[in-house]
Amino acid sequence: MLDAVRAELGERGYDGLTLDGVAARAGVHRATVYRRWRDVGGLLADLFEATRDDDWLPRDTGSLRGDLAALNRENQDALTARPSIAEALIAAAYRSEEAARGVRRLWEDRYARCEVIVERAVRRGELPPRTDARRLLVAATAPIYHWLTLLRLPPDPDLPDRVARDVVLAASAGAFTEPPPGDARPSSEA
Amino acid sequence: MLDAVRAELGERGYDGLTLDGVAARAGVHRATVYRRWRDVGGLLADLFEATRDDDWLPRDTGSLRGDLAALNRENQDALTARPSIAEALIAAAYRSEEAARGVRRLWEDRYARCEVIVERAVRRGELPPRTDARRLLVAATAPIYHWLTLLRLPPDPDLPDRVARDVVLAASAGAFTEPPPGDARPSSEA
Repeated sequence: MLDAVRAELGERGYDGLTLDGVAARAGVHRATVYRRWRDVGGLLADLFEATRDDDWLPRDTGSLRGDLAALNRENQDALTARPSIAEALIAAAYRSEEAARGVRRLWEDRYARCEVIVERAVRRGELPPRTDARRLLVAATAPIYHWLTLLRLPPDPDLPDRVARDVVLAASAGAFTEPPPGDARPSSEA
Repeated sequence: MLDAVRAELGERGYDGLTLDGVAARAGVHRATVYRRWRDVGGLLADLFEATRDDDWLPRDTGSLRGDLAALNRENQDALTARPSIAEALIAAAYRSEEAARGVRRLWEDRYARCEVIVERAVRRGELPPRTDARRLLVAATAPIYHWLTLLRLPPDPDLPDRVARDVVLAASAGAFTEPPPGDARPSSEA
């Protein structure tokens, strides 16, 4: 039945999501759906839990740039799919505090799983051990989301790899670590 | 009256925005508001146009890192203000195609104005002339939006400058330019 939830959410968005619609799409009796979820909040909570319980892991391509480019391509594909569950969940977070909490936990889980990309790169000697994994992963993934969901620009097939390349270059120059104590910080000017 | 629109939008969000609410807040007769805007769509279009007509320019701090950090702090402040007009506009883009078009034009205009940051850095010799200004500006600003509006994490006061520093390091290592023709592209593995 969760497939029916995903299909309804992707096609109708959060505002069009109803237990009746899910029942009709899944071809089950309304009472079955209402017994299981009570309301749309319960249904979304279940969907988030199921998504967190999947066995998704980022691809292991053998290099930091390859891993980040693969992750960006996967994210770009998820955001440009029509219908896009990823986009529907992002939009739902603006509509309901419950959905916002679910989305927040989902991101937390996905970024935690992605840290293996940084661990592998540290083991290969591509990154220094004191790399801030979360900051690197946000730098590597945020531009794709920014481009597609905020700026609402058409997808650029070269962007996933370009952003990966930029982040690898940044890391090679010492980014994503704590600045050394003597580093001048222009922020004190403000 | 546009101040009343901003205040209503910030406090009530797109779904709570009504011409009657704006009239009450501005202390003018309903008929005045209906004559000017007809509906919420007209009111939003006017708000977007007024925002595009302002004379905002990014700060000139004398260095690329300083300029990017100042821009990030400004964006972080706008997103964490309560109420936040910036967040209300982002949310509105998920609610109405008209708002989405207005937000898209607004971003386009803001990023175009920010290109002067890159031009100044090129003139100072901090960046090579063939820098992709838009890609650099997206890399420099996307993490703050990602952190606050998608991951929904609490603001980190150090993040605006850290992200600025990471982007300057990336640029110093040759990021945000077209890769040279001989550059191996792991994307071909996919």
